[in-house]
Amino acid sequence: MPLAPDPGAGTTRIAHVGLAVQHVEALQPLLTGILGLPSVPLADSDGAKIVGYAAGDSLVELLEPVTPGTPIAKYMEKRGAGIHHICFAVADLDATLTKCRDAGIQVIDPEPRLGAEGKRVAFLHPKSTAGILIELSEY
Amino acid sequence: MPLAPDPGAGTTRIAHVGLAVQHVEALQPLLTGILGLPSVPLADSDGAKIVGYAAGDSLVELLEPVTPGTPIAKYMEKRGAGIHHICFAVADLDATLTKCRDAGIQVIDPEPRLGAEGKRVAFLHPKSTAGILIELSEY
Repeated sequence: MPLAPDPGAGTTRIAHVGLAVQHVEALQPLLTGILGLPSVPLADSDGAKIVGYAAGDSLVELLEPVTPGTPIAKYMEKRGAGIHHICFAVADLDATLTKCRDAGIQVIDPEPRLGAEGKRVAFLHPKSTAGILIELSEY
Repeated sequence: MPLAPDPGAGTTRIAHVGLAVQHVEALQPLLTGILGLPSVPLADSDGAKIVGYAAGDSLVELLEPVTPGTPIAKYMEKRGAGIHHICFAVADLDATLTKCRDAGIQVIDPEPRLGAEGKRVAFLHPKSTAGILIELSEY
């Protein structure tokens, strides 16, 4: 079934890219010192310490596991450091999640919750998204 | 040694995020059908078939390995599908690479080369960047 795009979909953008690393400050010399990306304080979330770096309309989020057994800690145990997820900001999160479910895409969070940036977010299950962990947030 | 940011660094942005997947069209129903991101034809590069999706000022690039032994094929053999690299667009690539080398960050490409978008690019070695594969391109 062809799906009508979200009315606000033309403005969908990358909200952030989450990088799982051993130390949250590890890329500060490159990201701020060389590339000039200002750091943005963010609340801890899901057992991870988080520092954001602003790159245009997007953020790069460095995620350092602090609590064993939480998602970033488990990812790093299994795969080592790497790019953990990509988050798209959409205009209407609930409408987008309904479209995802209608298209057979599994949504991990039964209801949207607040993410590190204080916005409503939900994750899609990578089994439904070609092995890529995708988060959706509402701007 | 504190490093002076690139003069154009305030405009550094995420050029693209590269996703290693089994099939280059795998996320089309989500990215275009639901999120409304238009697809952008890109040339094959480094043994991978590539389709881009425009998200604001950035691209999401889906990378499907077609030639065994090339970087995306090797990544997928080892780790499965996942987010392979993040590319930052900078104003002056040569100056940025010089700063990286001066800071002890290993640059994989001895000289910048043309990437899938037809722009000059170079990769930094993940051993120097906390395990994250980072590409730099020039806009």
